[in-house]
Amino acid sequence: MNWTVYLSGEIHTDWRDQIESGVRKAGLTVTLTGPVTHHEASDDCGVAILGAEADKFWHDHKGAQINAIRTRSLLAEADIVVVRFGEKYKQWNAAFDAGYASALGKPLIVMHQDEHAHALKEVDAAALAVTKTPDQVVEILRYVTNGKLAGYTD
Amino acid sequence: MNWTVYLSGEIHTDWRDQIESGVRKAGLTVTLTGPVTHHEASDDCGVAILGAEADKFWHDHKGAQINAIRTRSLLAEADIVVVRFGEKYKQWNAAFDAGYASALGKPLIVMHQDEHAHALKEVDAAALAVTKTPDQVVEILRYVTNGKLAGYTD
Amino acid sequence: MNWTVYLSGEIHTDWRDQIESGVRKAGLTVTLTGPVTHHEASDDCGVAILGAEADKFWHDHKGAQINAIRTRSLLAEADIVVVRFGEKYKQWNAAFDAGYASALGKPLIVMHQDEHAHALKEVDAAALAVTKTPDQVVEILRYVTNGKLAGYTD
Amino acid sequence: MNWTVYLSGEIHTDWRDQIESGVRKAGLTVTLTGPVTHHEASDDCGVAILGAEADKFWHDHKGAQINAIRTRSLLAEADIVVVRFGEKYKQWNAAFDAGYASALGKPLIVMHQDEHAHALKEVDAAALAVTKTPDQVVEILRYVTNGKLAGYTD
Amino acid sequence: MNWTVYLSGEIHTDWRDQIESGVRKAGLTVTLTGPVTHHEASDDCGVAILGAEADKFWHDHKGAQINAIRTRSLLAEADIVVVRFGEKYKQWNAAFDAGYASALGKPLIVMHQDEHAHALKEVDAAALAVTKTPDQVVEILRYVTNGKLAGYTD
Amino acid sequence: MNWTVYLSGEIHTDWRDQIESGVRKAGLTVTLTGPVTHHEASDDCGVAILGAEADKFWHDHKGAQINAIRTRSLLAEADIVVVRFGEKYKQWNAAFDAGYASALGKPLIVMHQDEHAHALKEVDAAALAVTKTPDQVVEILRYVTNGKLAGYTD
Amino acid sequence: MNWTVYLSGEIHTDWRDQIESGVRKAGLTVTLTGPVTHHEASDDCGVAILGAEADKFWHDHKGAQINAIRTRSLLAEADIVVVRFGEKYKQWNAAFDAGYASALGKPLIVMHQDEHAHALKEVDAAALAVTKTPDQVVEILRYVTNGKLAGYTD
Amino acid sequence: MNWTVYLSGEIHTDWRDQIESGVRKAGLTVTLTGPVTHHEASDDCGVAILGAEADKFWHDHKGAQINAIRTRSLLAEADIVVVRFGEKYKQWNAAFDAGYASALGKPLIVMHQDEHAHALKEVDAAALAVTKTPDQVVEILRYVTNGKLAGYTD
Repeated sequence: MNWTVYLSGEIHTDWRDQIESGVRKAGLTVTLTGPVTHHEASDDCGVAILGAEADKFWHDHKGAQINAIRTRSLLAEADIVVVRFGEKYKQWNAAFDAGYASALGKPLIVMHQDEHAHALKEVDAAALAVTKTPDQVVEILRYVTNGKLAGYTD
Repeated sequence: MNWTVYLSGEIHTDWRDQIESGVRKAGLTVTLTGPVTHHEASDDCGVAILGAEADKFWHDHKGAQINAIRTRSLLAEADIVVVRFGEKYKQWNAAFDAGYASALGKPLIVMHQDEHAHALKEVDAAALAVTKTPDQVVEILRYVTNGKLAGYTD
Repeated sequence: MNWTVYLSGEIHTDWRDQIESGVRKAGLTVTLTGPVTHHEASDDCGVAILGAEADKFWHDHKGAQINAIRTRSLLAEADIVVVRFGEKYKQWNAAFDAGYASALGKPLIVMHQDEHAHALKEVDAAALAVTKTPDQVVEILRYVTNGKLAGYTD
Repeated sequence: MNWTVYLSGEIHTDWRDQIESGVRKAGLTVTLTGPVTHHEASDDCGVAILGAEADKFWHDHKGAQINAIRTRSLLAEADIVVVRFGEKYKQWNAAFDAGYASALGKPLIVMHQDEHAHALKEVDAAALAVTKTPDQVVEILRYVTNGKLAGYTD
Repeated sequence: MNWTVYLSGEIHTDWRDQIESGVRKAGLTVTLTGPVTHHEASDDCGVAILGAEADKFWHDHKGAQINAIRTRSLLAEADIVVVRFGEKYKQWNAAFDAGYASALGKPLIVMHQDEHAHALKEVDAAALAVTKTPDQVVEILRYVTNGKLAGYTD
Repeated sequence: MNWTVYLSGEIHTDWRDQIESGVRKAGLTVTLTGPVTHHEASDDCGVAILGAEADKFWHDHKGAQINAIRTRSLLAEADIVVVRFGEKYKQWNAAFDAGYASALGKPLIVMHQDEHAHALKEVDAAALAVTKTPDQVVEILRYVTNGKLAGYTD
Repeated sequence: MNWTVYLSGEIHTDWRDQIESGVRKAGLTVTLTGPVTHHEASDDCGVAILGAEADKFWHDHKGAQINAIRTRSLLAEADIVVVRFGEKYKQWNAAFDAGYASALGKPLIVMHQDEHAHALKEVDAAALAVTKTPDQVVEILRYVTNGKLAGYTD
Repeated sequence: MNWTVYLSGEIHTDWRDQIESGVRKAGLTVTLTGPVTHHEASDDCGVAILGAEADKFWHDHKGAQINAIRTRSLLAEADIVVVRFGEKYKQWNAAFDAGYASALGKPLIVMHQDEHAHALKEVDAAALAVTKTPDQVVEILRYVTNGKLAGYTD
């Protein structure tokens, strides 16, 4: 089985690259997917393709809907969904994705630092693993997809 | 048809009471549901019933899971889901509920002020109405459930 | 069993009243539902409640989305969906409702005159009955819900 | 991920070819599907294979049902559904497909000119993008499937 | 809980009445539903309501589709489906209903005599009980709905 | 798209081979599946693998359940289901499969001779095509899967 | 909202009565359901109604299938499922019910003593609450259904 | 069709290897999947990856949840689920998996010795085959996937 893992959430650090690199190093049969991470393209895709809007609300609306074509399709295709909450910003779309994945019955892995634990307790309670680092995500993917756990040999 | 409307999100202002009052005044056949809004009870329900935890993470986890028994059942029962984002806090559970409701195909009404519009653009894009006040929610419920729109008479 | 029947489509003649009257005369345990049929209210509900839009497209969009809260909820609740195509206009929303109901697996009854038969052949092919008059719909509802067929006595 | 995109609706212009050509030029991993676009074959397939009918209604019925084997299977397989409304004819089957796809939760892209905007407002309200040209559809598919937006480079 | 039990199949003996009578005598909170059992009405409902057909195939088709509005709605509403195969005729609609109910996950009770056991082995294998008499069905309904089994007292 | 077509029903004539041959000749990307057609193996598989039964009912039951592992999996995988009713026997399993496939929303093609039309009217009414010969099934598969209809060239 | 709570598992102590009594004392709008708890009736229902079996395996099989009509219907109807593991016996049906309920997405409350915690860790991990006493279950139901938590007043 | 078969349950004997070997010898197009069978890794995976826990309950909880990412994904992917109950231990997770698979509608094959038949009667009643040896499972897979039954030649 090839596993598909959707990486949702924060787009300002290189955590996706770290997971990609770890997955490759471990030789896992895992396909990683995610949203468009180019911030400006993601904001402007609606008006760039479909025409400008005078009102910022509709500018955002057209972009967010086009992004939804991608994100909902990839979420629905995923075997596992990882959602990372970074240090900054509201990141409501990350929490939205977590809820969306949860209602679809997707196994959910959350990543965040301790200081957000209380604010994220409902999200964490819906997850099957709460992690802090990309390395932990890679270790979980290794264990889940090929059954290997570092230090536990036959 | 009796309509069930789940009111998710912010618990520090009286917006639920305002909607309740408006719905009663308009005589709508609408049942309003929502999470437990007693902040301390909501935080402590897990340990209060199932026993104390040394670790705050598990304290939160036990509570959040018991709250999930209520919130997911009521979300699944709802015909319409209203999610309000207030002025303060991260409110990730509100966004989580919005995503959860959206994946279940529930019609979604969002309530927030303009300053959060950009940060909430993915949530708004999944909604069928974006409102700012409890009155607007009441007006939508009136129109949706009994077809009456103020100023439009036969 | 109480049956719920959604009456979709044309809003310029009194066909809904005729079905309502026939159903009452026959004493059927049938609840009839449908969209808001006040044309102006239906067009303006979005801006009337949520604020004016400079652009007609968004004016329409806000209204159509609020109407969707009602129509999709009632379609999903219905046991049977009746869709009438009248003499005039494009009536794409009627055909949209027919497709929507069909994908939900709802038994579909279509009503239109012969001159539209070819243009509606895909819609008719998805229906369990193709009728021309409100009386025929009432007769079907009578037979389906209480097993009585005029002229066939025990 | 290979994306499957169903192209529904108008069959009298070459819009499908334009999208096909644009998708190939852009090198997208997109498979395009659609109904049988040979008008006479589509009308006659039922009687040609299963035997003539004296009554035009059943002639149409047999054909429409065989076409439904194809269209419903391909709609159900699609990741994205594009529905184009042309300048002429009632095109109720296009609106039917839009409703059908919408109820299945498929991301919907609609294509039509401005003059039909008001008549299509319910269909547009169910879509994640409203376009006017095949080029816009290709641009959306490019952005959605590989994240590239013209003019936005890293 | 009120239980709804759909009684499908043979319409030439009074087995439905026997079950009805047994259920009433036992005082069970069970609602019994079923197809229209007036043979001629069932055959002719299509043409009687929608107009005559020259071709017997379409005569049957119109009637069978109207009957399907009733039977599929009631099958979908049922908690338990009972299907009886009588002594005579092909009774393919009974077997069709059994397959339909089975795919919906409805608990299936089959009733037939021993001589049909081999021919019905696939249907029996999909059932949770294979009975021979209306009394056995009533006993099962009594046990299942209120936990009472004749001869087993507390 | 590769299409999977399940061939259910009668096992005493070579209709499956004729369809297989026609599909190969037409070069269609169609995979044909079906039940085990070795009559004795199909009857005895349960006891041959799991041990003899004194009672014929349980002999049949064990076999029918093992056959169900195959048939329900393949039915669920199929894009299209063809069910043939032959000249002889009760063939209740064919009608059961038709009902099962219908409840799963699978496009259904039925094959039988005219003399069974009235007895099969409920099954026919659930089908998208009613055929008499393997050739007609092949023609439908050709039209549905690659859009070609004999005598209709561009 | 009236809540339906299914009480699965151990039948040799009076834990169901304790929950019933607690729920009544607290005045909750909760309906409690469960399997037939008369051990002998539960074992013998199949043969008592449908006829004796020489082979104990089929004796058990017939009974277990009739019990399944009840238990699966009630599990499917439940808003919340409580599963208790007692001190004795294998109780595989309790674990089966827990898995069944979990796959249906039902909120799961488990009850057992500490000594079984390791053996039940997969079941506990699927639960939203792990309790030890009927009182704890009642407290959870009180909190979940009416929002009251002992010691937390407004 | 390639068949995927999930092997759940007992991890202390080599039954999975025997099935694997039998499947290879028979040349079946069957992919076998299953849980992580390294007992210590399975117990410790949570704390090994995510950090130690003072409390054994949470130690187990974290591990069981990570194992659930694997087991639920593979169960959901499986065409057939085999569950073996061994001679020792409570094996509640095996029964949980059986219930989980059953609610998903997966064809279930159970393996156990006669002495457990009564305790497993509810689980057996949900199965399509009850086996005692790996050889029987292989024979079923051979028959189900390629239609060959030993001793039954054309």
